Amino acid sequence: MMKKSLLSFSLIASISILSTGCDQKPKENKPQDNSPITVNLTDNKEPKTKVLDPLATKAIEIGLKSIPEDLNELNKLIDNKNNPLNQAKIELGKMLYFEPRLSKSNLISCNSCHNLATGGDDDISSATGHKWTANPHHLNSPTVYNAVFASRQFWDGRDPDLEKQAQGPILAGPEMASTKEKVIDTIKSMPEYVSRFKEAFGNDEVTYEKATMAIGAFERTLVTPSRFDNFLNGDATGLSAEERKGLQTFIDKGCSTCHNGYALGGSMQPFPAVGKYKYANVGDFKGDANGLVKVPTLRNIMETAPYFHNGATWDLNEAVKIMGQTQLGIELTDSEVASIVAFLGSLTGEKPLIKYPVLPASTSTTPKPNLN
Amino acid sequence: MMKKSLLSFSLIASISILSTGCDQKPKENKPQDNSPITVNLTDNKEPKTKVLDPLATKAIEIGLKSIPEDLNELNKLIDNKNNPLNQAKIELGKMLYFEPRLSKSNLISCNSCHNLATGGDDDISSATGHKWTANPHHLNSPTVYNAVFASRQFWDGRDPDLEKQAQGPILAGPEMASTKEKVIDTIKSMPEYVSRFKEAFGNDEVTYEKATMAIGAFERTLVTPSRFDNFLNGDATGLSAEERKGLQTFIDKGCSTCHNGYALGGSMQPFPAVGKYKYANVGDFKGDANGLVKVPTLRNIMETAPYFHNGATWDLNEAVKIMGQTQLGIELTDSEVASIVAFLGSLTGEKPLIKYPVLPASTSTTPKPNLN
Repeated sequence: MMKKSLLSFSLIASISILSTGCDQKPKENKPQDNSPITVNLTDNKEPKTKVLDPLATKAIEIGLKSIPEDLNELNKLIDNKNNPLNQAKIELGKMLYFEPRLSKSNLISCNSCHNLATGGDDDISSATGHKWTANPHHLNSPTVYNAVFASRQFWDGRDPDLEKQAQGPILAGPEMASTKEKVIDTIKSMPEYVSRFKEAFGNDEVTYEKATMAIGAFERTLVTPSRFDNFLNGDATGLSAEERKGLQTFIDKGCSTCHNGYALGGSMQPFPAVGKYKYANVGDFKGDANGLVKVPTLRNIMETAPYFHNGATWDLNEAVKIMGQTQLGIELTDSEVASIVAFLGSLTGEKPLIKYPVLPASTSTTPKPNLN
Repeated sequence: MMKKSLLSFSLIASISILSTGCDQKPKENKPQDNSPITVNLTDNKEPKTKVLDPLATKAIEIGLKSIPEDLNELNKLIDNKNNPLNQAKIELGKMLYFEPRLSKSNLISCNSCHNLATGGDDDISSATGHKWTANPHHLNSPTVYNAVFASRQFWDGRDPDLEKQAQGPILAGPEMASTKEKVIDTIKSMPEYVSRFKEAFGNDEVTYEKATMAIGAFERTLVTPSRFDNFLNGDATGLSAEERKGLQTFIDKGCSTCHNGYALGGSMQPFPAVGKYKYANVGDFKGDANGLVKVPTLRNIMETAPYFHNGATWDLNEAVKIMGQTQLGIELTDSEVASIVAFLGSLTGEKPLIKYPVLPASTSTTPKPNLN
C-alpha cells in the first residue's frame, strides 16, 4: 500500500492529505448588502461570489488571513521553492517525523514533543527529552500545526524555515541527542528508506539535510482550517455572537497588531513590550539579540496549553490578560478577556488525517540505541 | 468525522479496521492432488474448496494456526465475552492507547513502549519509562501486535487477558507512573471522553477498569495476517523454497512444540528448559513461581529486536541458535538457522491501518503533569 501511494507523484495529489478527514460545515453563501468586499472563488470551476460580513472585511483589512480553500492556492502558499513538495517526500517526511530511531535512545521522535494527537505539542511546561532532561531555558514546545505560516522558527527566530528548524532538535542534547551520523546510518541501514529517498529526491543519496527537508515537507502540510477561516471566506455564521464580539475586541484592543497573517502570529516582536511579564523568572530566555521573541500562532490555542515561551500558565484567560499588560499596556476586563477567549476557540481547526506510519524493520546494520 | 464513525455500532463494522490497509497478494486457488486436507471457505457466500500443500497440512496438524480470513470468524476469535467489542469502544481504546496524559508526566502512552510504527514494541533492550527509569528486572517490551492470541499476558503470565494487562503499566513506577485517580480525573475532565464512554459502554461512568477495557478492546484488533497465513489457507506460493525448508526444519526440530497456535507462541513454558541461557546474567527475571516464562509470539519477529525477555541480543540468528540450545538441547547448524530465520520472515504481517487520533483538548480541570 505504501508502495502504491508513492506512485502518485503529483503536487496536487500531495495536498489531498490536507482535505481528507475534514469535517467542516458546508460553506453557505449568505450575501449581505452592507459588505464592501467580494471574493471570487473558482472551486470546481464554477465561479462563486461571496459577499463578506463587515467584521470579516475589517479583519482582512487589518491583516488576518484565511487558509486558502482552493488547494492550488494553498499548495503555492505552503510550498518551498528550495524544497518542492511531492507526495513521496511528504510520506517519507511523515515516517521520519514519527521515527524514534533517529534519536540517540530510539525513544524520542519529532512527534514526542510535537504530538499531532495533542495539538501538535506536548502538554508540559518545559520541553523534556533525552534522559528526561528539561530544556535548559525552560522553553515550551511550540505547536507544529500551522508552523509553516511563521516567518521564523524557534522562539528566538533563529531559523528561517521548517527544513532548517528540523535540523536542530534531532541533535540537541536535551531533545533527541542524536548525531548526523546516527541519523544517516539509521536511514541507510533500511533499504525501504533508501528507495524512498530516491522517490522523494530523484536520487538515493542519504544526507542529514535531505532527511530534514523531508520532515519539513511533511510539516508544511500540517495546516488546520477552522470556523474562523469559514468566516473570513464569507460564512457569516462561522462565528457565534460571543466570538464575533471577541474578534471585534481582539482587533480594537490591538492584539492583531502582532497576531496577524495566516498563523495569527509567527513574526518577531518585543516581549515584554510595555509592561512587566509576571513569570519572567521562569527560565532565562530573553529573546534574540534584540530582545525579540517569536509570536506564537493562536490557531489551536485551546489545545496548546501551557502558554508563553516558558509555559508559565495553563490558564488561557490569564494569558490573554497578561498579554494586555505586557504588550498593550492595558488592563482587559474579565468580559473582554472572556470574549477574546471565545473568539480564540474559533481557531481550533480540523487536523489533517494522519495514517500512522508502519516503519521499516531495523537491520543488522541499524545503529543500536544508547540511553546514556 | 469521529462522531460519525461512532454511529456505526455493529460488530462487523468494528472489524473493518482489520481489513483496511492490507495489501496482501490475492489468494490463488491451486489444488494439488497429494493434499489430504480440504478447507471449505464461505467468503462472499460462495463456497470454495482449497486443497492444501502437504507442508501446510503438517503445520496445521502439529498446531500452527492461521489468522482467519473470514471476518466473522476472526471477530469471534478476538472478542472477549466479558468485554464485547464494539466500534465505539475500539475507537475510545485507540485514543486512550495513544493518550500521554494518562501518565504522570503527560509524556508516556501505551504506544511509547508498544509503538505501532515499529513492530508494536520499542527497539530497546529494557523497557524505559517515567524519569527515564529502566525496568528493574531488565525486561523487554513485548509486541502488542497479535498479543490477543496469547493465553497469558506479561513475561510471567500473571494476567489472563489484555484488559487486565493494561491496568499494570499505567500505574507502574518505571513505566507511566500514574494513579487510578489521575486517569479517571483526566478522562472526566474532557467532555468528549465522557460521551465516548457512554457510547462505548452504554453509560458515562468513568472507571479505571473501563478505561483499560477500552484499551484492551483496541489491542484485540491489532492482528497482522501474513504470507504464512496465506500458505496455511491454501496459497502454496505463499512461502518461498527457503521459507518452506525453514518451516519444515522448524517443525522437525521441535520449535513448534511451544511456538504454535495463532501467535506461534503465547503459552507458559520452562525457560531455559534443558540448556544454560548464555545471557541469564542480564537482569534477574526467573519466570513465574514455577519458573515458567511466556513464549513470545514469532509474528513480526523481524521487527521486534532485541530478543528474549531481557532483550539480550539483536541478532535473530543468534536467538534461534540459543533457543535450540536452551529449549531443545541441540546445536542447530548455520544452514538450519538460516532457513528457520527465512521462514520467520514470512510471519511479518500487514498492520491494520491506524488513523492517528486527534485527542480532546485539556480543560481547566485536567490534572497537570508531574515530571518528578
